[in-house]
Amino acid sequence: MSVAVIDVATAEKISKQALLRAGVPVHQADLQIQLLLYAELSGHASHGLLRLPRLIRRIGNGVADPVTAGASNWRGDAYLDVDGENGLGPVVAMGAIDAICERARRTGVALAGIRNCNHLGMLAWYADHIARRGQVAMLFTTAEALVHPWGGRRPMMGTNPIAIGVPAEPHPMIMDMATSLVSMGKIHDFANRAQPIPPGWALDEDGEPTTDAQRATRGAVAPFGGPKGYALGVAFEVLVTALTASAIGASVVGTLDADQPCNKGDVVIVIEPAKGVGPMISRYLQDIRDMEPAEPGVPVLTPGDRARAARERNAREGLTIAQRIWQEIVDLAQRPA
Amino acid sequence: MSVAVIDVATAEKISKQALLRAGVPVHQADLQIQLLLYAELSGHASHGLLRLPRLIRRIGNGVADPVTAGASNWRGDAYLDVDGENGLGPVVAMGAIDAICERARRTGVALAGIRNCNHLGMLAWYADHIARRGQVAMLFTTAEALVHPWGGRRPMMGTNPIAIGVPAEPHPMIMDMATSLVSMGKIHDFANRAQPIPPGWALDEDGEPTTDAQRATRGAVAPFGGPKGYALGVAFEVLVTALTASAIGASVVGTLDADQPCNKGDVVIVIEPAKGVGPMISRYLQDIRDMEPAEPGVPVLTPGDRARAARERNAREGLTIAQRIWQEIVDLAQRPA
Repeated sequence: MSVAVIDVATAEKISKQALLRAGVPVHQADLQIQLLLYAELSGHASHGLLRLPRLIRRIGNGVADPVTAGASNWRGDAYLDVDGENGLGPVVAMGAIDAICERARRTGVALAGIRNCNHLGMLAWYADHIARRGQVAMLFTTAEALVHPWGGRRPMMGTNPIAIGVPAEPHPMIMDMATSLVSMGKIHDFANRAQPIPPGWALDEDGEPTTDAQRATRGAVAPFGGPKGYALGVAFEVLVTALTASAIGASVVGTLDADQPCNKGDVVIVIEPAKGVGPMISRYLQDIRDMEPAEPGVPVLTPGDRARAARERNAREGLTIAQRIWQEIVDLAQRPA
Repeated sequence: MSVAVIDVATAEKISKQALLRAGVPVHQADLQIQLLLYAELSGHASHGLLRLPRLIRRIGNGVADPVTAGASNWRGDAYLDVDGENGLGPVVAMGAIDAICERARRTGVALAGIRNCNHLGMLAWYADHIARRGQVAMLFTTAEALVHPWGGRRPMMGTNPIAIGVPAEPHPMIMDMATSLVSMGKIHDFANRAQPIPPGWALDEDGEPTTDAQRATRGAVAPFGGPKGYALGVAFEVLVTALTASAIGASVVGTLDADQPCNKGDVVIVIEPAKGVGPMISRYLQDIRDMEPAEPGVPVLTPGDRARAARERNAREGLTIAQRIWQEIVDLAQRPA
């Protein structure tokens, strides 16, 4: 795969230009690009600029509204019900988050249940934003069914991530992980390189275990950690649907295609931390980093350490992007308005 | 190990009598025994009647107050701050839960952050209670550090469970799982039977991988699912401390000993579900149970199915309890007041 190394300022400028050409207003384009760049910088290319051309096709197809921040309604004093009206993920979600962060100052906890909204992307971005405001964040989201139940043969759950952000020094703790063993994107990578996948990663389209990456792309990915990871994934699927009245299981569409409205759900919970706990938490996280590692020279990490180190490194050294994708973005930025 | 099979009514009567003799009022004894029996019925002996003799020693030692439901204070309109005042776990927690369930009807979401409270026991019991009220539950709790960080050598986290309850028919979905690969209780079982534990389960007291169960009891248990389960466990540890100002990591005491006040934290979140989602969720869970299993004849389960089946079976057939523990409870029930 041919790659381009692009400095961040250039990547930001060109990709924002591509969105502006697609009719996205400046503020909305800014949020969307900050989100994609955060993922790209963090080393999560699957949630990075790769997503931009499809998003622009979605706007062209009328299934992503480049302007709206959705219609919000306080269903209770601490519960914001959000119809995303097909708006952009970070536009709708950040609007809701600003409202519930403000509300949680008074109520102690506040929740946004979001439906009909485009892909939120990397949840760590939102958790980081909330934690830097001094508040605790929990986020859940569903997506197309790609993961099979433990002991089952067909996909029934999304890769259903959970993200948690907690204020700490010198950096907040940001945990963001899918409940699948690997991403479907990784299976596609193996398929593109015609390499077999390790046993246990996936089932084929007939529900049989396979090491054939190509067949696995039409099958289902395993949950991480066996029955426990499955239990988490299915519980998050049910939780999100219960709170957002979004679609569930195999009926979820819109985050992997260019022509169907997104019908998954997203849940954000913001909580005021107890007073005075910051130093204890910061010290605890540092104690973990400082502990003697099992393997000499391989330091123990806390959640988010690896992604943050990647962001710092990539901000200096530039983003490594598949040439094909970068060229596509450049073309989108240069097309006639 | 010699075991006794005790019918549930007898187990309830005798074990409640043991608590009454220890000075626990009827209402408090009732809650505590319902909790322990639920775990025992569910097949989770580690959270069952096994805990009763130690709890009675804790009452005798003055580190468990048999009467108080704690001191509660609304830190915000939807955030109940609870100082458990060394009260019994289910007494303090159920008091808080009743208050936040009621509050969530109006606010949409409400949270209780509990500290200085004895062991909550099996979180599924609370999640089940909340889901049967028609509300969504999330619970987190910390405990003594028994689990090692991924790539680390010493225990730094509790087995930090998460429980989620969502209303559904014919039963709510109740997910309740520790973030450790196995419980320390299971390691003790292997040690008691002088059997080796499987590789990967635990480290010894020097931080080295071991299959020696005896040495593992002085070491640390692995997180489930490798780095992802570790990320969850440490995130829950930090989350609970951030919301309750409880002790963290190696400074947590009181759920495994008889003489130190409990200083861990517990978090309960109650949320009003969206209107009309029940049938979709119930159907989804049933679709999973009905799907073709990977192994013919081994049905696919949804979270809580196994424990519920165990409760129904054990309610009919009686509880199988270690003879030594049952005799201890009988003696406690018969001792002079």
